[in-house]
Amino acid sequence: MSDSASLPTGAAGAPAPPGRVVVPADDLRAFTQQAFKTRGMSHEHAATVADALLWANLRGVDTHGVTRVPRYVELIDLGDMNATPAMVVKEVAAGSVSIEADRAPGPVAMMRGMNEAIARARVAGIGIAVVRATTHTAALGYYTRHATESQCLGIAFSGSSPNMAYHGARAAGVSTSPLSIAAPGGDAQSPIVLDIASGVVSLGRIAQARKMKQTLPPGLAIDREGNPTTDPALAWVPLPMAGPKGSGLALMIELLSSVLAGNPLLAESLEGTAAGKRHRQNGVCIAIDIARFIDPAAFALEAGRLARDIHALPATDPAEPPMTPGERGDRMMRLRAQTGIPLPPPVAADLRALASRLAIPLPAALGV
Amino acid sequence: MSDSASLPTGAAGAPAPPGRVVVPADDLRAFTQQAFKTRGMSHEHAATVADALLWANLRGVDTHGVTRVPRYVELIDLGDMNATPAMVVKEVAAGSVSIEADRAPGPVAMMRGMNEAIARARVAGIGIAVVRATTHTAALGYYTRHATESQCLGIAFSGSSPNMAYHGARAAGVSTSPLSIAAPGGDAQSPIVLDIASGVVSLGRIAQARKMKQTLPPGLAIDREGNPTTDPALAWVPLPMAGPKGSGLALMIELLSSVLAGNPLLAESLEGTAAGKRHRQNGVCIAIDIARFIDPAAFALEAGRLARDIHALPATDPAEPPMTPGERGDRMMRLRAQTGIPLPPPVAADLRALASRLAIPLPAALGV
Repeated sequence: MSDSASLPTGAAGAPAPPGRVVVPADDLRAFTQQAFKTRGMSHEHAATVADALLWANLRGVDTHGVTRVPRYVELIDLGDMNATPAMVVKEVAAGSVSIEADRAPGPVAMMRGMNEAIARARVAGIGIAVVRATTHTAALGYYTRHATESQCLGIAFSGSSPNMAYHGARAAGVSTSPLSIAAPGGDAQSPIVLDIASGVVSLGRIAQARKMKQTLPPGLAIDREGNPTTDPALAWVPLPMAGPKGSGLALMIELLSSVLAGNPLLAESLEGTAAGKRHRQNGVCIAIDIARFIDPAAFALEAGRLARDIHALPATDPAEPPMTPGERGDRMMRLRAQTGIPLPPPVAADLRALASRLAIPLPAALGV
Repeated sequence: MSDSASLPTGAAGAPAPPGRVVVPADDLRAFTQQAFKTRGMSHEHAATVADALLWANLRGVDTHGVTRVPRYVELIDLGDMNATPAMVVKEVAAGSVSIEADRAPGPVAMMRGMNEAIARARVAGIGIAVVRATTHTAALGYYTRHATESQCLGIAFSGSSPNMAYHGARAAGVSTSPLSIAAPGGDAQSPIVLDIASGVVSLGRIAQARKMKQTLPPGLAIDREGNPTTDPALAWVPLPMAGPKGSGLALMIELLSSVLAGNPLLAESLEGTAAGKRHRQNGVCIAIDIARFIDPAAFALEAGRLARDIHALPATDPAEPPMTPGERGDRMMRLRAQTGIPLPPPVAADLRALASRLAIPLPAALGV
């Protein structure tokens, strides 16, 4: 959900505007699992990938939802994503593991990473998993939120190929590297989950605008000549959030993930090597065991108190009180769990084409 | 140096513009040490505080330099900063310590925190120090850079009282919580050091504009009624960087530092309790031992390669190639180590008044 903070996705729960179809989440989840199983993926791995994508859809972060399924299948067919990875987990110190992910689907590698980080945190108070050679890591909030279920604070970030302007440059130099931080909230069902990309807007949002033929707001992207543009067809890469802060954060994430993992991405791509032309990502998961520092119940109590204080601040728009990170997504999740996931016509068309190509049944609501 | 990314401080190395005095760094360092020793601070602690402040000045981040000395002395006299703290370090797990800082000067507590984090990282691969009840943490890059000298990646952040607008609110709700991340660079003398605040501009920069009677650029701050302002005299608090991303990051930093340390700051201040009216901060230092994951020499080689690739990107301004985080500060540091620290007249006047009040000698260049 790396772009949820900067731009609304524009999709409400229900009723669907004309042309949209609304599909129950469980039907889309089953469809997604089936799609990946046609490529030999295990039930367990297909379920993890489907759940991560549907989680994003349920929360209103449609850029990181089922719209990605055709691309993931394409990545498998290209050999860039491995449907049957042989992941190797190596404990390198009491609090640290390195994971060779063997080009596993991002959600499979990152869930493994967060679970290992949690296990290490139980021993060392803090745990880290450096995940080498994964693929598209999807919505990072899915993994950090998972850490809160074990009474841990969760931190995750991931490095990717250059797809964002570097401050002071007229070209892509870093990736829109996302960062997610999660903490248990006052209510165990609603942790506080920040999930931001280092760009002013995500690539997914630009791709969505292209698909939907929407003009972009100014100040978000540059074209291939390095000039500002609002035309999603010409938009090449987004600008970094807060100028040098965003591109600096993205550069540090490359150093802390890809360079630490011995699998550099930016340099390979910027120098145009063969490896640099393939889809590759690296990720890092960190967990901190709250109980080593403070009673988790006391932490939850203070988190709830802080959330109430934020809600009570004088609102810029009286109709919308200030929200804590992830709160808007929680609200959408409750709604969409009831009403289903609205799919814009181009996304529905993509999924219909995929079903036909893979010869798998469509969710009833998507049937022709 | 939390604001270096968003606004230049406007101070060049030399020659000084009319009205400015230029003081050798070592003279200012000695003066700063003396000032704190009048309050009973040990030589070692006074040296640490002075070095952290002068480091910021040398790098051009004058908002976090000697301009703070009168305020630090005032905090000691108020009883909010403790010149002779009894810090207690407790190992809570193999990779984790909690530090009760007893209101120590920020640089004293945070240097101790980073050294403990490095020691824990040697054991667990990753180490964390949660620093409870410190005071103004100065420039966080000073501590993360220190970690790189031990072949570690360094991460630091700190929580403070509400002094930044919360996205969607017309009032202060969070602090301009800074985040610093550092990695060894290709050249051991020049690590790559990101040091950013979560606001579009730092409080120090607003205070500086007030002192220098400079108009602020639009979009940086709100007044006490929650309206945008460019008048530094009316500016109450800065806006968060990138809207909800900046205030969301600041909220997570409060949870990961203050709430984890059992010393909540935001809630106390927002609710107007007695504790919430005092100057208080909490901080976190994390170190990652590179050698557990990859040969540090290989890491440095790749970091240097990446820096060269960034420099080679087509520049927006042909006269200024894109720079890596901290590179501008490194350049300024080389210059100011030779030429001295330029002090604007109001800062020089503050230091003269302080010297007179504390009955300590002024640096020769500041003498009347």
